[in-house]
Parts: sequence; C-alpha cells; structure tokens
Amino acid sequence: MKSGLLNERASGVFIIAATPFDDQGGLDLESTDRMIDFYLSCGVSGITMLGMMGEANKLSSLESTAFMKRVLARVANKVPVVVGVSHPGVDPLVEFSREAMDLGAAGVMIAPVSTLRTEENVLSYFAGVMQRLGPDVPVVVQDYPQSTLVNMSPATIQKMIELHPQFVMLKHEDCPGHSKLTRIYRGCQDGLHRSISIMVGNGGLYLPQELRRGASGAMTGFAYPEMLVAVCRLFAEQKPEAGEDLFDIYLPLVRHEVQPGLGLAIRKEALRRRGVIESSFVRAPGAKLTRDDLVELDSLMRRLERRLDSNSIRSKLA
Amino acid sequence: MKSGLLNERASGVFIIAATPFDDQGGLDLESTDRMIDFYLSCGVSGITMLGMMGEANKLSSLESTAFMKRVLARVANKVPVVVGVSHPGVDPLVEFSREAMDLGAAGVMIAPVSTLRTEENVLSYFAGVMQRLGPDVPVVVQDYPQSTLVNMSPATIQKMIELHPQFVMLKHEDCPGHSKLTRIYRGCQDGLHRSISIMVGNGGLYLPQELRRGASGAMTGFAYPEMLVAVCRLFAEQKPEAGEDLFDIYLPLVRHEVQPGLGLAIRKEALRRRGVIESSFVRAPGAKLTRDDLVELDSLMRRLERRLDSNSIRSKLA
Amino acid sequence: MKSGLLNERASGVFIIAATPFDDQGGLDLESTDRMIDFYLSCGVSGITMLGMMGEANKLSSLESTAFMKRVLARVANKVPVVVGVSHPGVDPLVEFSREAMDLGAAGVMIAPVSTLRTEENVLSYFAGVMQRLGPDVPVVVQDYPQSTLVNMSPATIQKMIELHPQFVMLKHEDCPGHSKLTRIYRGCQDGLHRSISIMVGNGGLYLPQELRRGASGAMTGFAYPEMLVAVCRLFAEQKPEAGEDLFDIYLPLVRHEVQPGLGLAIRKEALRRRGVIESSFVRAPGAKLTRDDLVELDSLMRRLERRLDSNSIRSKLA
Amino acid sequence: MKSGLLNERASGVFIIAATPFDDQGGLDLESTDRMIDFYLSCGVSGITMLGMMGEANKLSSLESTAFMKRVLARVANKVPVVVGVSHPGVDPLVEFSREAMDLGAAGVMIAPVSTLRTEENVLSYFAGVMQRLGPDVPVVVQDYPQSTLVNMSPATIQKMIELHPQFVMLKHEDCPGHSKLTRIYRGCQDGLHRSISIMVGNGGLYLPQELRRGASGAMTGFAYPEMLVAVCRLFAEQKPEAGEDLFDIYLPLVRHEVQPGLGLAIRKEALRRRGVIESSFVRAPGAKLTRDDLVELDSLMRRLERRLDSNSIRSKLA
Repeated sequence: MKSGLLNERASGVFIIAATPFDDQGGLDLESTDRMIDFYLSCGVSGITMLGMMGEANKLSSLESTAFMKRVLARVANKVPVVVGVSHPGVDPLVEFSREAMDLGAAGVMIAPVSTLRTEENVLSYFAGVMQRLGPDVPVVVQDYPQSTLVNMSPATIQKMIELHPQFVMLKHEDCPGHSKLTRIYRGCQDGLHRSISIMVGNGGLYLPQELRRGASGAMTGFAYPEMLVAVCRLFAEQKPEAGEDLFDIYLPLVRHEVQPGLGLAIRKEALRRRGVIESSFVRAPGAKLTRDDLVELDSLMRRLERRLDSNSIRSKLA
Repeated sequence: MKSGLLNERASGVFIIAATPFDDQGGLDLESTDRMIDFYLSCGVSGITMLGMMGEANKLSSLESTAFMKRVLARVANKVPVVVGVSHPGVDPLVEFSREAMDLGAAGVMIAPVSTLRTEENVLSYFAGVMQRLGPDVPVVVQDYPQSTLVNMSPATIQKMIELHPQFVMLKHEDCPGHSKLTRIYRGCQDGLHRSISIMVGNGGLYLPQELRRGASGAMTGFAYPEMLVAVCRLFAEQKPEAGEDLFDIYLPLVRHEVQPGLGLAIRKEALRRRGVIESSFVRAPGAKLTRDDLVELDSLMRRLERRLDSNSIRSKLA
Repeated sequence: MKSGLLNERASGVFIIAATPFDDQGGLDLESTDRMIDFYLSCGVSGITMLGMMGEANKLSSLESTAFMKRVLARVANKVPVVVGVSHPGVDPLVEFSREAMDLGAAGVMIAPVSTLRTEENVLSYFAGVMQRLGPDVPVVVQDYPQSTLVNMSPATIQKMIELHPQFVMLKHEDCPGHSKLTRIYRGCQDGLHRSISIMVGNGGLYLPQELRRGASGAMTGFAYPEMLVAVCRLFAEQKPEAGEDLFDIYLPLVRHEVQPGLGLAIRKEALRRRGVIESSFVRAPGAKLTRDDLVELDSLMRRLERRLDSNSIRSKLA
Repeated sequence: MKSGLLNERASGVFIIAATPFDDQGGLDLESTDRMIDFYLSCGVSGITMLGMMGEANKLSSLESTAFMKRVLARVANKVPVVVGVSHPGVDPLVEFSREAMDLGAAGVMIAPVSTLRTEENVLSYFAGVMQRLGPDVPVVVQDYPQSTLVNMSPATIQKMIELHPQFVMLKHEDCPGHSKLTRIYRGCQDGLHRSISIMVGNGGLYLPQELRRGASGAMTGFAYPEMLVAVCRLFAEQKPEAGEDLFDIYLPLVRHEVQPGLGLAIRKEALRRRGVIESSFVRAPGAKLTRDDLVELDSLMRRLERRLDSNSIRSKLA
C-alpha cells in the first residue's frame, strides 16, 4: 500500500501530523518538510493531516491547500496520506475532498457534524456525504463523541460498513470503547459484514489493550511515533507482552498528552524539543503552556530518557 | 446611521438575511437582490448577513465573498450591514472581518467558539479577538448559549462593555434571558458602564416583552419583517399595547419558525411563497420540509392572512 | 377509563400537577386538594404528578409518599393518575413505582437517565426497567431530549412499542418533533406496530399542529388547563380551526411559560393568582421571579383577560 | 485530625469508598466492614463515602442511612469520614447533611447541580447551600465538570473560599486542570485568600504532577490505595522522583480505571479479586464487564504483580 488509495487492509501507525507555524503564527513549510521526514523515518505506515489536532479549522482555504500540497509533495507516495475534511457544510467538505484526492491523497477522514442528534440522523448524514463523494473516494469515519458530541452504536457503524463500500477505515476513539471495538472487530472476523481497518485514537492511551482486541493499528499524534510503530510491530510479531512493556515506559507522557485541548500544545512543544519543528506556536483559540507547564514537561521528558537508558530500550525502537 | 459604521445607538430591526440558493444548491444572486430589495422595502434599519441562519458555514470562502459583495452592492449604504464572522479560528475570523470591512460592512458579529468553558475563557477569547481586530471594527457579540454551548453571566458581558469600546451591540438570545436583558439595560441607563445597543434574537419570540424591558430592537430573520418593523415603531411611538396586539397576530408563525434547525427551512419556504426568493433550498446538512410540513405551513399562513384581513391590519404595516 | 390502569386509548388532557409549597417551602397539602379540585373542574382526562415540573427531585422520600397519597385520595379514581418515577437508579425507580401502583396510580412515567449515550443504551435501559417493573405496570415514556440529553430516533421508540406491551403512552416533547410524531402516529395507524397514546408536552407550544398530526392529547402543566381541554374537545369534534383560534388567544402566555427553568415559577405564580394554590414558592435550586417578572406576568394576564372578554370566549370554555 | 471535623489542613489520601452489594444487588454490610478495614490498613487519611463512584444515587434513603451508619461505626473515628450529599434539591441535600453530621461525619461533599449555567449561578447556588447548612458543617466542593457539566473559573472558586469559611477542601478534578490547581494553590500560599486543602481526583491519573504543583493529596477510589498512600508519603518526605517511580508502575491500571462509567465496574472487580468485597455487582444503570473485559483486567493485574516482584517494590508500600 505504498502508493495508491487507502484500503481496508491498512495497519500500523497513521501518525496525525501537526500543522507547524512560526512564532508569528504563519505556516512554516520548512518545518513541515522536516516533520514529514521525521515521521517517515519513524516507520509510520501512513500520515493523517488536517485532523482535529492539525488545527485544520484555524487555517484559511489557501493555507489548507498550500499545506496539503507541501505534505503530499514531501511524502511523495512513500506512504498513504489521509486528509481530514470534516466541515459543518457538505458542499465545502466535498469540494475540499475532491481537491485533496486530485492532489494525491489516499483518502479522506470525516467526523459527523455536531448537530446530528439521533443515529438515524447520523446514518442519513453519512449516506448523503458518501453519495456526494462517490464510490472512488476512500473514507475514514472518525468516531470521537467526546469532541463531536455525536454517539454511534456499534450497530450504526456496522450498518455503514454494509451500506458504503468506500468506508474502509474506522478511527475509533470512543471512550470507554473497548467493547465497541471488540464488537466491530468480531463483525469483521465472523463475516457479519465486510472487514475494515480499525485504527485507534484517543492519544493511544489504550493502544496495547486495543491491539489485543484486534485493532489494526493507531491513528494518533503522540510526539514519539517510534514507540507507536515499535509497539504495533511487536504485536504483529506476536510479542504482545514485549509491546506492552515498551508502551508502558512511555505511558506517563502518553497520558500527559491526552489532556483535552492542552494536549496539542504539549505535543507541539515536545516535537520542537526533539528538533522536529521550529516553533511550538498554537493558533488562537488554543492553549498556551505556562512556565509551570514547561517545567512539568521537562520533568516528564527527562524521566522518559532515564527509563530508556536504564532499560537499554533504544535498540528496540530501531 | 444610513451609512457609516455601526454604533451603540442602533435600533429598530436588523433583519437576518437568508442566503438564497437555486434548486441545485448554487448561490442565487438574483434572488439575493430581490431579497435585499424586499428587506429594505419593509423598512429595516439594518441587515445582518452570514449569521447562523445564513448558512455561513456551508459556503466556500469564494462564495462568502461573492455573496457579501452582492449584498453590499445592492444595499448601497442605505442601511448598515453587519457580517457574521464567527469562526473556530481567530486568524480566519480576523481575515474575513477585514475583507468585510474593506468591502463596506458596518460591523461584524461574533459568537464565542463552543470550546470555551469558563467565563474567564470567554473574556480572554474576546480580549484576543478585539485586540486583533483593532478599535475601528464595530463588533456585535452574539449571546446564544443554546447554540454555542457557552454561557455568559451579565457581569461578564458588562466587563466586556467596559473593556472593549468597539463592542457596540449585543445580540441577546439567551433564554430565559429577560432578567439578563434588564440587568444589562439598567447598567447602561444607570451609568454603570457605556450604553450599547441591545438587539433581541430567538426568532423574536419574546419581542414585546423585551422591548418593554428596554431592548433597542430585534435582530432576527422572521419571514414577515414588516411586522417586526411595525412593532418596533409602535413601541418607539409609546404604543406598546398596539405593538403587542400586532405581534400576537403573527405569534403562531413566529413560534413555528423558532423550532431549532427546522426553522430555517420554514423561513426560506415562507420567503419563497411570498415571492422573495426563487427556491427554498437548504444546503446539507439541513432540514428538508416534508409534505406534512408544507401542509402545516399552508395552514398557518392562511390563518395569518385571515387574521390580517379580519382585523384590517394591513394599513398598520404600511 | 375513569378508574383502573392507564391504557393506550388515553386521550384529552393529562395535566402536569404542580407540587404546592407554603411560603417556608413546606408541602402544602391543603393547596394540593384545592389544586386537584381545580384540575378536575377544568375537565382534565388525567393527572400526572411528580413530573419534571413537579419538583419531584427536590422532595424527600417521605414527602413524595405523603404528596402522592394526598393526590390519589383527592382524585378518588375520578381520572387516572400517572406518577413520575424517573430516577438515576433503577432500584429506587422500581421501588417507588411499586409504591405508586399499590397506592392506586394508573401508571408511571419514565424518562431515560442522562448518562445513556447511544440508542442501543436507551433500548437496553428500558428493557431492564420494563423487565423489573413487570407487565402489569403501564408505562409512559418521556421523550424530552432538551432536558434529558438523550436522543431517540423514531425507530428506537417504535422498537420499544413492539418489545414492551406495558409501554402504553409516549410523552412526546422532542423539538422539532412534528415529523417524529407523524412517523410514530402513522406507524400506529398503518399497523406497523401496536397503537399507543401520544401525548404532547413542551408546554403545549405546538398543540394545534400536533393534534392535526394525530396526537392523542396533551400532557403539560399550563396554568389555564381549561383551554387545553377545550382545544382537545374542539379537535375531537372535528373543529380544528375553532380549536386553533381558541389556542392562539392563549399562545402569548403559553410561550411565556415555556421558558426553560423560569416557566415553573411563572406557572406557580399564575396558579396562585387564579386562587388555586396559596403560595408560588419554588424550592431551591429554582428560579425566583423578580419585580420585573411579576409586572410582565400582570401585563400578559391582563391582556388575556381582555381578549377573552372581547371575543366572548368564556362560553366556549365551559 | 484523627477525629473531629474536617479542616483545611487535611492531606494524604481520602479514599473514595465503593458501596458493596451482594450478587442480587442488596447492600452487603459485611463486605462494607471488610472494605473499611482494608482502607484503614492501607493507611488512608480519610474516607469519602457516597460519592459519584459510590453509586449514591442508586440507593434508597433507608439504604443510604444504613450504609452510612455501618461505615461510621466501623471507622470509629480513626480517620475523618466525608459524606457525598450532592442532590438535585437543596432541601434533601441539607436534610441528609444534617443526618450525616449527627451520625459523626467529619464533613460533606457537594457538587454543583448540572442545571447551573453561568458562574453567577454557581456562586449563588453555593451561597444558598452554605447558608442553609450553616457555618458548622465543613464542606468539600467537588469541581468535576466532565460529569456535572458545570464549569468554574479559578476566580469563582477563590471567591467561594473568601465567602464561605466552611469551605475547607476542594476536590479538584477538572481536566485539563493543572494550571487551575497552581492558581488556587498560589492563592493560598500568597495570602490572596485562606488556605484550603486541595485533593485531586480524576482517578489519580495525574497525581505526581499535581503533588508537585502543591496538591494536598488525593481523593479517589483506585483499587490499590496503598500505592496512593505511599506516593503521598514519598512526596511528603521530599522524595518526588521515588514517588513518581512508584506511581508509574501502577499507571497502566490507573488509566484503565479512569474510563468513564466503566471504571467503577473495573474497580469493584479489582477489589473483589483482592478479597476486599464479596461481589463486584454494580447496580443498574451501570456497566457490566464482559468476558473480554475480565481477561483484559487479568492481564493488567498480572503485569502489575510481575512489576512489583521484579522491582522489589512491596517493601516500599509497607
């Protein structure tokens, strides 16, 4: 799946890309290149851009297009790129999806609009969107009720699997969501419906548990993608305990980054410290880290380094 | 105030303009002209475009600009035009505000983003936005918690009046909100803070009560603007009972239009039937009227006509 | 249906009873008697006590029982009495339901707990509750998402009709909800499922429209129950226009009472002024009417009186 | 503070007690005794009963009283006991608080009712409650917006510290909430207002970070209270790195238990496996663990045991 369209066999880590700005808040395209190179060097299976953590809704249309072009050019088809296209209006969503696909995206990611109230509304919304996009645009459905305020039963997701062949991947980040994951995974395994890729989000907070339950991989933006990649690889190699051991070393930082809203600022600052992006600027409205927050992050990062050293872990990440 | 910038003495009716589409969902600029002429002929004091009821977030940037240009050209400074610029990101909000002001808007309307949680967050958000917009852009703050999920105490609004001279108008549509209106109005009257214009929304459902409590007028999109104008005029002429009598005749339709979500579809259909716009098309995601809904609207409109005839009301609306 | 259990043929007005307190906040059982007599004299078909508007969750268990006994004794089987038993826990709900039925209630009313998220959760919740209550307790399901935060598709309600024979009445107060009402009503008519009683709430704001669409009647607490009764009777006599004419005269007050939270205080004050209850005390936390609110209510009530006089309406209410 | 009333110097671990049921859902008072003994043996500084995790709102009044008596008798003033008294109505809240204090509670815990919308409403609600309770009832205010839907700025909490001397402890579980904690802590330190006890909740997910920022301790219900106690002790002994090292070993289970709703079922099952309570029954509506959930918990508990053994940690917990 190095090039071409996204499909239901996608697995591993689809990293959620940050959108790098300079200290004045302008798009930083050089950091973008460096960031993409970094992600690729970590061994990710795919890249998702302009997701919720990508500050997509703080960009102008021109900026979205410029950023998308830069990312796609730098990725150069080495891995599939998914573009977040969620939008309050279906027309702009479809227009932007077409632009993304024309520029070489492998698929689009869509979260339901927050005004949907019943699950009939959800089904009807996605039916409309899928019909407008057509069968040739692979779709990732994002199930993230903590942010969208829209709840979907497993049965609703499964009906969408049946109805829409272009629905190839679920971004699963309901919480608690393990039983939901199990039900959908079993539905795939038992032939109740087509098989799709199930990528977990929620900052990866439950990644080992979810991989044990059948998740295909992770789609999240943790600032140490090499860990996510190594954990998924160890699970693929049938070494779940080793995978979970590795994960647990990073868990203090994983749980630090899942703080709603604040997490993005922490993540950008961690990427900056790792030399990946030039500035940790977050556009307004958005969290700013205080001096205390920076001291706290120092402490957590230093603790991680110490753990990595003392456990001779670094080799496992190669 | 026929031309120039919006100020705190604005009163009467600022009609919320629909955004007319054709039956295929494309912008209908000819209906736009006809609609503007209709609003002006009703005697409105101002026009608000691209508000929540204007399907602003279902337009592309190019469409927003095209529509804004058309409206401003047709209004030709006969009344002030307020442009809704609410946006999840401050940068696009500021950019679009500048475009609007450059094209001749009298001011911009801003609702708080739905992720603000405490009132400190609200104050900080608006402080940032006001600072970015600068002192020369008159601002209408929209207080509509049912839709934004953001609640503001009267004290928070009053602090914003003190802090931001460009905050010249409050779109008041909290519900229940009469006591809030009274407190802010008294704050203006008693010199607790600057006086600002207080325009009521909520479809006008409580317009007579709110005018009695000191509201400056209404900013809403009811499909019979002539009633809103006449009611405001009768109150200005110290004839509140006559104003409320007139209002009550239309109340069945007013309350029909305030149904959340569905109201826009009803409003567009009523405008279509009145010959104002060509099509009642609402972009997705949005309500579609069923056959039963259309029969119901028939009945309500016929009942209104009958009431207007039997009470020889039409003269009062001239 | 003068005595006995609630069934799916219930129609007319089930008035939502207030819970009268004295000025110190104690239960006022004498006002309770007078209030029940008043409701019966208005011609209601049933009485619902301890609903959301009945301040049920501000009573101690002992008070709930005392109030329930007093109401049931005073009603003396003249009309069926429904008892609101919604509760965060199923055990207390079941226990209180049994107590209510033992004391002579005709059925119980249940709203879903606000922590239910998907419609599968809703179905599972009600399945558990119905199973615990057993087939002999008639149940009214309250569909009021504005307050419960729980949304149910028509299909979910229809599945519950199929599954639970004791589900005999829907309290329909979703908004917008007309299409939902039509779908469920048609499901009853077309034999898609059992027929149930559909009583509308939402303060009666859309009563004529909902009766035209097939509603069985109203279950709400408007302070002028005689109007609700007369409107339902006129519709039953196939005089919808006369019914709606009568309704529209009261509409200004109906819409005044639907203000969330504040409405209960207004309703109690209106009942007090009408001589029905001794005090308009609302227990904390709850709205208190300001002097301005009282002046406003004066004005609305006087306007109503004037309309009733000038239209010689009073005879129609007899 | 072994006996007597709760005060602002409280620190360490106030464990949130589960409410043990038997397999039929009845109160299990023998497990209650064993559980209290277990908590005391872990070295907790206090016990909080009938909190949100204590299924308080699924008990009848009689059960609440019976459970409260049993707990207080078993604790026998060895540590202070806080009773959760949050209730939709102020009258039942006050009545139950009096009962709790009469029976020997050290204080009561109160979360704001979920219908409060502005921070003025919050201040007014607590002013009313505090006035009704009187100055002699120590109060813990629970700030848990994820569950209550009520947001409070630091300034609002600080105003309450100034206004209400009986407000002696904050249960801090806003998230992200570290900056809020720092502000309130600094307000105490810098003499901006009285000093109060700040106990952190959120399942303890950020306990080390919060202790570094000045938290007095933890009030949460993690199934391994000995870890919470040891971590607080290590911090008190100025050994934060050792404390965080110990915490991190348990973090996989801590984060497993913070899953909203499901966490309670996991916690009860973990307590059952540890021999503390007889049954992990959770009353409806509530989560039930599936076979997959049990396997998952097995795995996590076994991994913990392994870590404890290999790190010779057990001695540190003594």
